[in-house]
Amino acid sequence: MVAQHTEIARLVEQARAGRPRAVARLITLVENASPLLREVMAALAPHGAGAHVVGLTGAPGVGKSTTTSALVSAYRATGARVGVLAVDPSSPFSGGALLGDRIRMSEHVGDPGVYIRSMATRGHLGGLSRAAPQAIRVLDAAGCDVVLVETVGVGQSEVDIAGLADSSVVLLAPGMGDGVQAAKAGILEIGDLYVVNKADRQGADATVRELNHMLGLGEAREPGDWRPSILRTVASRAEGVPELVAALDRHREWMAEHGVLAGRRRRRAARELESLVVAALRQRLAELPSGGRLESLAEEITAGRLDPYTAADRLLDCLTAAAAPPH
Amino acid sequence: MVAQHTEIARLVEQARAGRPRAVARLITLVENASPLLREVMAALAPHGAGAHVVGLTGAPGVGKSTTTSALVSAYRATGARVGVLAVDPSSPFSGGALLGDRIRMSEHVGDPGVYIRSMATRGHLGGLSRAAPQAIRVLDAAGCDVVLVETVGVGQSEVDIAGLADSSVVLLAPGMGDGVQAAKAGILEIGDLYVVNKADRQGADATVRELNHMLGLGEAREPGDWRPSILRTVASRAEGVPELVAALDRHREWMAEHGVLAGRRRRRAARELESLVVAALRQRLAELPSGGRLESLAEEITAGRLDPYTAADRLLDCLTAAAAPPH
Repeated sequence: MVAQHTEIARLVEQARAGRPRAVARLITLVENASPLLREVMAALAPHGAGAHVVGLTGAPGVGKSTTTSALVSAYRATGARVGVLAVDPSSPFSGGALLGDRIRMSEHVGDPGVYIRSMATRGHLGGLSRAAPQAIRVLDAAGCDVVLVETVGVGQSEVDIAGLADSSVVLLAPGMGDGVQAAKAGILEIGDLYVVNKADRQGADATVRELNHMLGLGEAREPGDWRPSILRTVASRAEGVPELVAALDRHREWMAEHGVLAGRRRRRAARELESLVVAALRQRLAELPSGGRLESLAEEITAGRLDPYTAADRLLDCLTAAAAPPH
Repeated sequence: MVAQHTEIARLVEQARAGRPRAVARLITLVENASPLLREVMAALAPHGAGAHVVGLTGAPGVGKSTTTSALVSAYRATGARVGVLAVDPSSPFSGGALLGDRIRMSEHVGDPGVYIRSMATRGHLGGLSRAAPQAIRVLDAAGCDVVLVETVGVGQSEVDIAGLADSSVVLLAPGMGDGVQAAKAGILEIGDLYVVNKADRQGADATVRELNHMLGLGEAREPGDWRPSILRTVASRAEGVPELVAALDRHREWMAEHGVLAGRRRRRAARELESLVVAALRQRLAELPSGGRLESLAEEITAGRLDPYTAADRLLDCLTAAAAPPH
C-alpha cells in the first residue's frame, strides 16, 4: 500500500511536469475506474490550475474532428498547452473509441504541448459524468491551458458535455437540415458559441440566418446575459479558426467578469459529486446481504404481487440498515 | 385523500375497460411524475396481462414511424389490441414530443383498438428508465396485446429501449452507411430482429449482406441461442410487414419456450426498481439538512481544498444519518 501510495505520488508529479506517459497512465486509471482513483484524485486536488474547458458538440458530419484539430493548431500558435478528450458515449458495449476518427489529429502527434485522448464511456452514460471530469482534472493538473472535449455522440451526450464545459461550442454545417436538428436536440439552449463549419458550401448564409432567428439574436437581452456568437469556419483550411479562439477567449473573460465561471465550475463539481454518491449507493445495493434481494423483489413485481414503489421502499430500508453504523 | 384514492381506483377500472381517456390520464400522471404514481402503480400491479413489448430503434431516416404505423395495421388485422409509445429522449429541454413525426399515425386515430402516445423524457435520460416501464404497465393493464415502443433518439437510448423490450427490432435502410453506424451504436448486440426497410432501394442487398456478415449469422451458434432474423420491408407500402409480425410472434414463442421471457421481464423490473431507489436517494440528497450541503462541498472541491471522493464520503455520512431511524 505504501508502495502504491508512492507510485501514485510519483505519477502525479510526473504528470504535473507534463510527461505524456504519466498523463496517459492516470487517464487509463480513470477510464478503468481503478480502485486507486480515490488516491489519484486526492493527489490531484490541490493542483488544478483552471484550464479553460471547451466542449464541442454537433451532429455527425459537421466536421467536429477537423475543427478540433484546427483549434489545437490555433491554440498552439498562441503558445497554449492543449489537451483533447474525444468522448464516444454512443458505444456502450464495445468499450473501444473510434480511433479512425482520430486520424485527423495525427498532425499533432509528437508535439509535447498537445495531449490527445479518446475515451469510450463504457456501460451507461453515467460513465461520462464520472470519467470525463476526472480526466479533465488530470489534464488540468498536467498544465493544459485549454481542454477541448469533443463528443462523437448526439442527443443527451451533448447536454452532458455542456454541463462539463466552461464554454460550449455547437457545430453545424450547411444543408443538413440543421435547423430542425438543432431544435430537436435542444442544442439551441446549450451553446455559448455557434459555428457554421464548411461555410464555403451552398446554404451557409441560410443556416446562419436560421440560427440567428432561432436564437432570437435580434431580440433585446438582459444586460447581464451572454449573447451567443455565430461564427463561420472552413476548418479543413483553418479559415475562421483563429477568430473562434478569440471568441472563446472573450467568452472566458466575460464569464470571469460576471462571476459565471465560478458558478459553472461549482455546478460541475456538484454534479460530479452527486454521481459519485449515487455510484457508491448503487454499489451498496449490489452488495446487499442475501445477494439476490434486488432480484427476488423484481420477481415479486413481475408476478404482480408487489408494485415497484413498495418494492423500492423495502430495498431502501435494507440499504439504510446496511449503511447505518452498528449499535 | 379518500377522494383521491377512489379517483385512482376508478381511473384504473376505466383504463382496464379500455377507455382511452382514462389511459391518457394515467400516462399523463406517469409523464408528470405525479405524487399519485405510487398509488397508481399499486392499483395496476395485479392487472398485468403480459403484453408483448416490442422496441423499435434505428437512426433518423430509416422509416421508424412509417414502420411502426404499418406494424399497427398488421397487428390490428390479426385482431390484437395495440399500444404505441413514441419516446423522444433527445429533447431534454423542451419537454415536448415531436408531434410532427406522429402524423403518419393519423390513420389509426379513431380505432378503439389502438392507443398512441408520444412521450418526451424530460430532464435526464434516467426519466426514460422510470416513465417508460410505468407507461407500459398502464397499456398492459389496459388490455393491449402488443406495446410498440419507438424511440426517436440514437445511441444510448437504443440500449435503454432494448432493456425495456421483450423483442428489440433494429431498423436500417440501404445506403446510409449503416454498417459503420450499426457498429458504432452497438446495435448489433441488442437486436433480436433486424429490418432493412426501404428494401426497394438500391443497396438493399448489400446492406443485408453486410448485416449477415457483421452478425456472424454464417457461424455456428449454441443450440439455445436465438438466431437474429433479418427481414426486408417497404413499410410505406406495407410490404414485408405481416412477415415482421410473424417473426415477432416466433421470437416471443421462442423466448417463452426457452425461459428467456421471464428472465428479461425480471431484469426489466430490477432495473426499474433500481432507478426508483436511486431517484429516492437523489431526493434525499436534495433534501439534506442545511440545504446547501452539496453546494458547499462543491465549493470546497472547486477551490482545491477537497477531493471529490472525500466529499462524497461526507455526503454519504450525512445521507445515512438522515435516513437512519431515530434512536
